[in-house]
Order: sequence, then C-alpha cells, then structure tokens
Amino acid sequence: MKDGALRVGIAGLGTVGMGVVRLLTQQGPLIEARAGRPIEVVAVSARDCNKDRGFSFKGVAWLDDAASMAQASDIDVVVELIGGSDGIAKTLVETCLEQGRSVVTGNKALLAHHGLKLAALGEKSGAVLAYEAAVAAGLPVIKALREGLAGNNIHHVYGMLNGTCNYILCEMESRGADFSDVLAEAQRLGYAEAMPDLDIGGMDTAHKLFILSNLAFGNVGAFEGVYVEGIERISLADIRFAGEFGYRIKLLGVALKEGDKVLQQVHPALVPLDSPLASVDGVLSGVFITGDHAGPLLMVGSGAGAEPTASGVVADLVDIARGNHIHTYGAPVAAMERRQTIGIEKRIGAFYLRLYVADKAGSMAVITQILAEAGVSIEQIVQAKDEVRIEGSEQVYLPVVMITHETDTQTMKHVMEGLGSHRDVAEPPLMLFIEQF
Amino acid sequence: MKDGALRVGIAGLGTVGMGVVRLLTQQGPLIEARAGRPIEVVAVSARDCNKDRGFSFKGVAWLDDAASMAQASDIDVVVELIGGSDGIAKTLVETCLEQGRSVVTGNKALLAHHGLKLAALGEKSGAVLAYEAAVAAGLPVIKALREGLAGNNIHHVYGMLNGTCNYILCEMESRGADFSDVLAEAQRLGYAEAMPDLDIGGMDTAHKLFILSNLAFGNVGAFEGVYVEGIERISLADIRFAGEFGYRIKLLGVALKEGDKVLQQVHPALVPLDSPLASVDGVLSGVFITGDHAGPLLMVGSGAGAEPTASGVVADLVDIARGNHIHTYGAPVAAMERRQTIGIEKRIGAFYLRLYVADKAGSMAVITQILAEAGVSIEQIVQAKDEVRIEGSEQVYLPVVMITHETDTQTMKHVMEGLGSHRDVAEPPLMLFIEQF
Repeated sequence: MKDGALRVGIAGLGTVGMGVVRLLTQQGPLIEARAGRPIEVVAVSARDCNKDRGFSFKGVAWLDDAASMAQASDIDVVVELIGGSDGIAKTLVETCLEQGRSVVTGNKALLAHHGLKLAALGEKSGAVLAYEAAVAAGLPVIKALREGLAGNNIHHVYGMLNGTCNYILCEMESRGADFSDVLAEAQRLGYAEAMPDLDIGGMDTAHKLFILSNLAFGNVGAFEGVYVEGIERISLADIRFAGEFGYRIKLLGVALKEGDKVLQQVHPALVPLDSPLASVDGVLSGVFITGDHAGPLLMVGSGAGAEPTASGVVADLVDIARGNHIHTYGAPVAAMERRQTIGIEKRIGAFYLRLYVADKAGSMAVITQILAEAGVSIEQIVQAKDEVRIEGSEQVYLPVVMITHETDTQTMKHVMEGLGSHRDVAEPPLMLFIEQF
Repeated sequence: MKDGALRVGIAGLGTVGMGVVRLLTQQGPLIEARAGRPIEVVAVSARDCNKDRGFSFKGVAWLDDAASMAQASDIDVVVELIGGSDGIAKTLVETCLEQGRSVVTGNKALLAHHGLKLAALGEKSGAVLAYEAAVAAGLPVIKALREGLAGNNIHHVYGMLNGTCNYILCEMESRGADFSDVLAEAQRLGYAEAMPDLDIGGMDTAHKLFILSNLAFGNVGAFEGVYVEGIERISLADIRFAGEFGYRIKLLGVALKEGDKVLQQVHPALVPLDSPLASVDGVLSGVFITGDHAGPLLMVGSGAGAEPTASGVVADLVDIARGNHIHTYGAPVAAMERRQTIGIEKRIGAFYLRLYVADKAGSMAVITQILAEAGVSIEQIVQAKDEVRIEGSEQVYLPVVMITHETDTQTMKHVMEGLGSHRDVAEPPLMLFIEQF
C-alpha cells in the first residue's frame, strides 16, 4: 500500500461493488491526483468468496463477516453496498459511525428509515456519512443540493428516480405494449428485478425522494409521511389518452415546501409534454429543483447501473480523501426541523380521471352529475369508442376520460368513491395527478 | 460581528455584488447552519460609494481602493466582482492569493487568461480560488465536474453558456425576426450590453468553455487554442432552413478529448431537435457532459442574472466557511498537462452551407461541381424561392442550402473559398458545424 492512502473496505461485491473496485483500479493515477492521495481497496466482504469475479483480489483482505469491517483498525472508510434498511447493513454502518469510521453508502432504504439517526451518530464521532450513489447513481444531485445550492431556500424537488418504472412507461408508449408484457420483458432482460414491487410500487422512488426532501428542506420528519402510489394500474390506454391531452405519464417524486410544512408524494402523474422531465427517457433519471436564488435547475443522467453508481461512490471517496467534511444533510441534525407533512388530501391541482362506463343511455349524465355535485368542473372529457367487456357480464363498457379543473384531493377521493360504487361503472376508476412545472 | 464568522470583503457592488450582499443578509440563519458559522460582509469596495443601493452598509468598511482589500488583515475571503482579465481585478486576486487570502470570483475572463497562474499562487500559499459563478452562474457545473465526476475520465463537454446569444437565437426563431432587430430590442430591454461584442462574438462563451475544459481534461494549454466564432452572420433564413432539416441553431462551446489532445471550439452549430441542448430556451444555460463511468449528464438552469450568480458565489463561500479545500482545477496544477490542441481544420463532421446563387441556367451545376471536385458529398440540398437582390446589381439571387456528409473542416474551407470567389455567388457563403449529441 502507498503511503497516505485512504484505506477502503467494500462490503458487498455485487455489480456495483465490483464496479467500484474496477473504477478505483483503472483510474488510480487520475483519482490519486484529484484526491491528493491514493484510494486503495484493502478489504472486501461478500457472501460468496469463491465466486469468480474476473478480478484478482491479491493483497486485499477477505472478511467473511461484513460486520467485522467496522472493527478493522486498518480501514479508514467502509463502502456499504449490501442493501436493505436493516440487518447487516444497518449494524455495519451504525458500528462504523459510532467508532468514528466514515461510511459511503448507496443504500437508500437504510437512509430513508434511519438516515437521521445515523447522521447524528456520525456527527458525534466526527465520521462522514456520504451517499451520492443512493439517489440517481452518478448524477451528482446530492452534491448539487447539499453544496451547490447551499445559499438557497429550496421550493420544489421533482424527481424521476426509478429507471425500471421509467423504462416500462416509455416502452409502453413507444411500442404500444401493455404493462404486464413490458414488465415481463424487462425482467427477462435484467432491467427489472424478479420481485419488482419496490420499483413499480413506488417505494424505491419514495426512499430517494425522502432523502432529497430531508436535504432540501432540512426536514427530520418520518419516512411514513411520504404518500406512495405505484404504476401498476397504468394502462396503455391511459398513456394514449394522456398523449392526446398533451401530457406524458411519469412516476414522479414530488417534494414541496409551503410555509413550514412539506408535501412529499410519489405517484404516477401527467406532466405536460414540454415539461423539463417529460422527455427524459427510459434508462435516465432526472431531477428538477427550484431554489429561491438559483432559480430552476434540471439534472438528467444515468440513474442506475454499475458504472454510474460506482462513479457516485468514488466521488464520495474522493471528497473524504480530500479531507472535506460536510454534514450528512448539509447542516447538523440539531439545526434541522421536524416539519409537518401536508396530507395528500389537501393537495390542490388538476386531475386525470379514467373510468369504464356502461354503453347505455344516461350513463354519461350520471357521471357528470356526480362530479357536479362534488363541485368538480371538467376541463376536457372524451368518451372513446374502444369497447371493453368485463368477464361474466354481457354489458359493453366504454372508456371515459377527463381532465378536471383544479380541485383538492379530498374532494376527488369522494368523487372516486361515488363513481366506483355506481352500477354503470365497470371497475374502480383511475385518478392521476397532473403536475405542472 | 459574531464569533467565528467568515469575514468577507466584496470588491464590486454592481447587480451581482448587491445580489451577494442581499442573499447573505436575507438568508443569514440558513447559511450559518449550513456553513457551520456565520458568513458576514465586513468590507465593500465600489467605484461610487455615494450611490443609493437601497441597503444600509452600517458597520461595513468602505474601501475606496479595491486593491487595498488584499491587505486588510480582518478579511478572510475576497469576493472579486470587478471583472476584466487584467487591471484592478487581476492585481487584487493575485495579491490576495500570494498572501494566502482566499478568493471567490465570477470573473471568467480573468480565469481564462490567468487562471492557471492564479491557481498555482493559491496552492503555494494555501488559499482557495473558487469560481462557481464564473460559468453558468448558479448552475453548479464547476462543482459537478470538479467533485461530482471526480472518478471519471471526461470525454465531452458541450455548453450553451451565453444567455444573450441564446435569447437572440430563440427570439429570431419564435418571432420570425432578424438578428439586428432582436439585438436592438435585447439592448433596449437590458438583456444585451450596449457593446455586445464579447457575447455575440463568442468570446464570453470561449472564456467559460476554456475554464470547463481545463477542469474536465486537466489541461494547462493556452486560451489562444480556443477557436471562436460568433453568431453575427446567422440570418432568420438560416434558422428556418435548419428547422426544415430537423435542426436548431445554437451558439455552442465544444470541448472534446481525443487521445491526449483536446479540441476546444465555440461556434454557432446545428443541433438535432431532439438533442439535449436543443430545447434549452432563451434565459437558460445548459451543459452536457459525458464521463466514462457516470455516462451522460445534462444540467440546465439560470446561467445569468444577479440572484443566480449570487447563488454561485455563496455556494463557494459556504464551502470555504466549512473548511473545504479543493484545488482550483480539481488537482494540483503540477498534475495537469499541457495538452495539444486539435486544430479546427482536423475536425470531421457534417456541415450546413448556405449561399446565394445567381438565378440563371447552370449555376447549380457549377456549385455542385465545386463540391464534387473537393470530394464533398451532399446529403440534402434545397434551392429556395425567396429572391434576393444585391445593391447595385440587376441579378436576382436564390438561396441554396445544403447539408453535407461527413468531411473535414480543411476541405470545407477550400470549398468555401471556391464558392465565395465564384461570380455566380452573391456574398461569402455561410458554413456551420452540425453537432450530433
């Protein structure tokens, strides 16, 4: 080992872990010049130490127990790439930070659930907890919020933070394919997990959004305050109707500050075609931030994959090697505030509604009557000709799609209940937010 | 003054200087929490100390001579907002850095011409030279390149870095107006300087591009290696023809690394309508970077104006207050390389050509013959019907516009000479690069 090197232990040698090992090896001299000292992997830990990873770990210590990395006195920084909000990952990170050992992690679930407690541990011991790779991989959005916009009160953060969802929605649109077909193919190609619930259910986006919200608004509220809805119910028909209205459907994370309160929600939403995030396609992630002085800031880049994620991890390691020490959330935890969450019911905006209505006289009148009684006015309404049949029924249904004027979510939920329980409506209607930015 | 405050002197109280003063005042508690200590303006310097700036400078020292700020022992950081590559700005920054006093500057001309020498001075004395605001104002592109992408070999940097040019080109397109009319109006509205040569001639973009190139490629070559061409010759007709071919015209800064050499050029170029920078409109700046691990990274935001620029300055001040110390160009000047410049003649690509040809039999044959003899093949060619007359001549001319297949600039320059000197061609033809990314 070279003198003065930053000694790194890597816990977890999946594709990202190996990406970090390869990046540090391939670009050793460049990284050494930039960091002011070499960054060397001195220890690794993985479930299977016999697996051929196509790399010689000569001179690198193999630890069978990842948690023991926290105890190794010859490691300066532990890179945690095990994953999961609890279990070994949490034990390892906690122990490191307690002992003053800095941690770089790509683990968004861990940060969303325990980030503030971990940040406080690091503050106490003087250790750094860095996590650029946890949100949007190599896209330096953590650095932009934590440092680049340090002089700003942040107003909004909109994020498209999950590649799997964006890939599925883009493929549905471009190939005219159904959700389940695209998902199956994405799984076959390795773009989606065998168990994709965290992705398509919105939870992965929620973890990332919550981290950005903590950072942007200095918020120490609980993760449970994030409203989460996935893309499971989006049909090809919805994508096409949205297109006809001038919108595209994206899974969005939205964090806003209004007064002292924050709104944090993840849901599929209609965004105007000329919105900064509308044209961010499949494999890319995008974040749109507004600051009170910097104005709007759009960042788009590779938000997943071994190499971009390794790029994010190495940026953090270079920061640590340079001796830079910035609080996990840009300010000490004690200076952050427990902000009240604005409940989803209070959110005001326009909505997209899609329902299947029995093809018979008077159906449309019944529907519009339900909206009128709730005080919701309709901006556009379309009844399409694509007949839909429901198993076990002779009745023919037709899709009715509409865009409402601005109203609150609470009111819309009442409307949805009214519509959903009506005998002329085939299945629970779908309601999507329209986000204008 | 509060204990432990970072004591700031501001040299230059124009709109940006006042923007910094206001931002630090308005957001004092937020900035203090993030920086870990207060950041206070203790001294200012401006040409006219009697001008009403709508701000009470009570308790702040007024220095008549900006250069004396370098000698004031009670100032930790000097913010240089005087401008100009030489004169007082240079003297002030040099003296500060020699004496170990950190500097934050928004002065791109100074950095383009003397940045490397100044960086070396800072390294020697231990002072920081920071300049986020010098390129794209509040858009944290310096931080992204210098820190966020520290693990990457950077391949390309494409920048739309001048708001005035982008505003003019966008207005020409959207309003169907001529260059000179839009420029005059931009001057009237204060969007363009009374002497806009630095902007429309491309030099402002060149300064910024060179800074990004130094940072991205660790290059210590001379600024004179940057090829610079402005937007003065772009006509409304060019914008329309480009649109018909599926392109938009933008003033681009392009920096590429090929092997050990770099290419650095600023010129108006045709970019495909679906290119990441094509839809960046008027008031915004955009940078598109590719790194070998992070992949593509697009950043778009407010690249000019008092508040965004102040946001960039304050980000640097917060970094300094936090005690973070990063080399000016991300690595010590000694670790950078004097890279050879790839001359513009060697650049290979497709080109847009526009010329006015006499409306008579055989003209088109002559032109296509000149191209054929040079070995340049034509992808698309259009002869339009808009008759053009040249003062003092009876001859009617018609615009001929074409897109070539890939060739090198050298060859195209020969073609241009051949075309320009032909008696059937009305005025020097216009040749524009087509940038595909």
